[in-house]
Amino acid sequence: MKVLISNDDGIHSLGLWHVARALAPIAQVFVCAPDREQSGVGTCLTLHSPIRANQVTPQVEGVTAWSVEGTPGDSVVLGLEHLVGPVDLVVSGINNGSNMGEDVLVSGTVGAALQGYVRGYNAIAISVYALSPQNYGPATALLRGLAVALNRDSLPRPLFLNINLPDLPADGLAGVEITRMGQRSYTEVVKVGEDGKRKWYWIARSKPVLHEMEGSDVSAVARQCVSITPLHTALTAEESLPALQGLREKLLEALAAASPA
Amino acid sequence: MKVLISNDDGIHSLGLWHVARALAPIAQVFVCAPDREQSGVGTCLTLHSPIRANQVTPQVEGVTAWSVEGTPGDSVVLGLEHLVGPVDLVVSGINNGSNMGEDVLVSGTVGAALQGYVRGYNAIAISVYALSPQNYGPATALLRGLAVALNRDSLPRPLFLNINLPDLPADGLAGVEITRMGQRSYTEVVKVGEDGKRKWYWIARSKPVLHEMEGSDVSAVARQCVSITPLHTALTAEESLPALQGLREKLLEALAAASPA
Amino acid sequence: MKVLISNDDGIHSLGLWHVARALAPIAQVFVCAPDREQSGVGTCLTLHSPIRANQVTPQVEGVTAWSVEGTPGDSVVLGLEHLVGPVDLVVSGINNGSNMGEDVLVSGTVGAALQGYVRGYNAIAISVYALSPQNYGPATALLRGLAVALNRDSLPRPLFLNINLPDLPADGLAGVEITRMGQRSYTEVVKVGEDGKRKWYWIARSKPVLHEMEGSDVSAVARQCVSITPLHTALTAEESLPALQGLREKLLEALAAASPA
Amino acid sequence: MKVLISNDDGIHSLGLWHVARALAPIAQVFVCAPDREQSGVGTCLTLHSPIRANQVTPQVEGVTAWSVEGTPGDSVVLGLEHLVGPVDLVVSGINNGSNMGEDVLVSGTVGAALQGYVRGYNAIAISVYALSPQNYGPATALLRGLAVALNRDSLPRPLFLNINLPDLPADGLAGVEITRMGQRSYTEVVKVGEDGKRKWYWIARSKPVLHEMEGSDVSAVARQCVSITPLHTALTAEESLPALQGLREKLLEALAAASPA
Repeated sequence: MKVLISNDDGIHSLGLWHVARALAPIAQVFVCAPDREQSGVGTCLTLHSPIRANQVTPQVEGVTAWSVEGTPGDSVVLGLEHLVGPVDLVVSGINNGSNMGEDVLVSGTVGAALQGYVRGYNAIAISVYALSPQNYGPATALLRGLAVALNRDSLPRPLFLNINLPDLPADGLAGVEITRMGQRSYTEVVKVGEDGKRKWYWIARSKPVLHEMEGSDVSAVARQCVSITPLHTALTAEESLPALQGLREKLLEALAAASPA
Repeated sequence: MKVLISNDDGIHSLGLWHVARALAPIAQVFVCAPDREQSGVGTCLTLHSPIRANQVTPQVEGVTAWSVEGTPGDSVVLGLEHLVGPVDLVVSGINNGSNMGEDVLVSGTVGAALQGYVRGYNAIAISVYALSPQNYGPATALLRGLAVALNRDSLPRPLFLNINLPDLPADGLAGVEITRMGQRSYTEVVKVGEDGKRKWYWIARSKPVLHEMEGSDVSAVARQCVSITPLHTALTAEESLPALQGLREKLLEALAAASPA
Repeated sequence: MKVLISNDDGIHSLGLWHVARALAPIAQVFVCAPDREQSGVGTCLTLHSPIRANQVTPQVEGVTAWSVEGTPGDSVVLGLEHLVGPVDLVVSGINNGSNMGEDVLVSGTVGAALQGYVRGYNAIAISVYALSPQNYGPATALLRGLAVALNRDSLPRPLFLNINLPDLPADGLAGVEITRMGQRSYTEVVKVGEDGKRKWYWIARSKPVLHEMEGSDVSAVARQCVSITPLHTALTAEESLPALQGLREKLLEALAAASPA
Repeated sequence: MKVLISNDDGIHSLGLWHVARALAPIAQVFVCAPDREQSGVGTCLTLHSPIRANQVTPQVEGVTAWSVEGTPGDSVVLGLEHLVGPVDLVVSGINNGSNMGEDVLVSGTVGAALQGYVRGYNAIAISVYALSPQNYGPATALLRGLAVALNRDSLPRPLFLNINLPDLPADGLAGVEITRMGQRSYTEVVKVGEDGKRKWYWIARSKPVLHEMEGSDVSAVARQCVSITPLHTALTAEESLPALQGLREKLLEALAAASPA
């Protein structure tokens, strides 16, 4: 089994190397991760300029690691399309901080896993809420279990799993739940300052607002469970299709008005 | 009616000002757009450093415009949370090039509209396939019609519409279709070079592969129709939930093995 | 006469367009300036990635203008080596804020002019101390006079002039002085903050400390005079050469110790 | 003795750690270096946004090291003003590639040392022409000798030394010369390309042109000697002062014409 590991906290992050350490005994492990923290960059790819990558000394023996001067998405694209080639699994994380509800849309952790999924590989994004150093154990145990299960089982492929854990030791966990993506947990606010010459604006995450929608990722973690949410990229709002059909005639009229007589 | 316009081609793009010109007669129009082209940055938000914005001379009278040193997402967050405040509609585009299928996930055009939608506002991302300068007419006529319709009609709110047009004049269009998001139309490839000291890698889009899935955005545009796809942010892969339930027991075992005895 | 204008405040800066307006009647004027403010970037060139430039609508008729997604130095290199070709004069400014003493070393205004000078062209960096909008007159009158004089007179070539003006109308100026570069007038301090996840450090200029060394740029401006300092790039500290000769023997011994026996 | 080491090749560069290894036995060694390669950024300081720094595992025992998400100049400012405090010596290098002639003006290696010098500390920038891994020995031996000599001797302070070595083992060196800064050895050229949507321009260094001016850095290295050039920041072109005095009257007339009647 070949596994590509990335993240958005950067290649120096402890969480990434805990994943490498957990999977190295059961897989051929490659790391392609950003050289700097990249929280919030979501699905961003660098298309307008070249990027660099340095092969670096791995913190886990037997692992091959590249530090990429780019985004999480860049790191995985570069790994899969050039440095590493096809793999059996892409893992992004362990992220320091949860990625739940609509926050997954701007999560670099999820953005890295996405690039594996759209290429047809199983992909896992894994995050721990407000991570304490001692609580990597459950996340890594889970990953090891999942890596084996996804590789052997006759599950549909590719799977794109977004996993969130509460900040607890294994014996403090209340269970494992298969969940749906919840609503927003953070919102952005804008702080304003002055640098002597011009105003600056700093987009900051406000405190999390936990909407405990039944069956959601947010709700599972609030009840001290591990949350596993299967994601896909079919963003179509099926529920809005009928209402929009009713608009078609009006829009055809609008278009007709745009035509030269 | 208040409308915030953004894009990912940058504030100098012709497409953006065509939107402003089309909507200025029927709405109070504000522009918050990146000062540089930002294709491919997707949902990216700048959370690690402050950004700047300059109020600039608008190309359309009566419009208030800011040039933002940040991403499309940053531009809309800054507009809605600080510079402009609440609006009735966010429009992103007219993008020079289509945003269909899974490409919408890394589209800065869609990433800008997203920040309106997650705040509860109607949001439209609009793109024209390989835009010829003379073919802005259908896109702007459609936007004007939609802006009025969304403001008056008893449609569900918020709507998040991803609109793609073929590069045709209004009388060349074969119709308007309400579609589903299709599959990938582009893929990324990595070009490799040398700058004398180190290798560089440049992620580039390969030529579009048009998968003509029935009822998709890609298929509609291929048949010379306008495609309107309603999007949402509920990324849960409902179809994978049952299969994952079967994994729970194995994962609980894996976790148990992580517990100290 | 062909003149290339750049700056470090960015192409939207009023000062740059005042220069263009002043010189357009007597020269063929080209603008290549950064699209964003770039104070403090000094001599920086972008060698690791490509840059873009957009031809933009000039604020002064007859001028050809490019907005460059790069540093002041990049803008001038791109202008002289590709977009414009050889010129008779490079002007950088009018900068909003003085560039005196050792600050010229990190000044983007001076960094832009430098790239003209090292290619053999006359180059002028011009700055006004805490610029009031009404006080562009003296700077532009001076530039017009200098452009003519440098083009006609049998002065040595190339000249690299760093000009600083106090923030005064022409009839408030006490004279014009040919000066030497003074000592530091600003120093950098580091502000420390927290973004929730990590510390950040912000390098800021502290208040100017005016060392009024006789005959210096700082001293001239303090006495309400225009300061004109001729610069060169011969950074050799002639005064230290004798003392270093005395070190040579010791260093040869150190090197000998490094040799394999 | 306290020494701060930086560079522009980035904290992963072998040259930097060779310096640390050479000086650790005789000094308290601190490293503040950019996390990415920064060739060509010259004197650039990041004044418009905060920077981050991570304390990292040193490759040499007893050394304290920070990886800085900024320029070489930023790294030294942050070290001296916040992380480390006052030191006895700043060393920048060993750079992979020479920094001679006017190239020192855009050299990040020299830009890092500059920030030590302008604060009153002895500062050394050290580079090897086209470095072979086996030829670090002479550079490190020289640095050890210099660090001791500068600390003990009654030399003028601060000294700012720009050192260049040919790519030779110690027993291949023809001597040590105290030199003057020579003329340009590189020039920039602009390569042009297309990314499918827009042109890009890439500023590249052309092949070195070695002007063998007698007594210069370039000439010394060409004759297989170590070159030590003392630099200062007094950029005044003394030789141009007389010619400019003759311009003063004309410029006063130009200014008078700018005055309101």
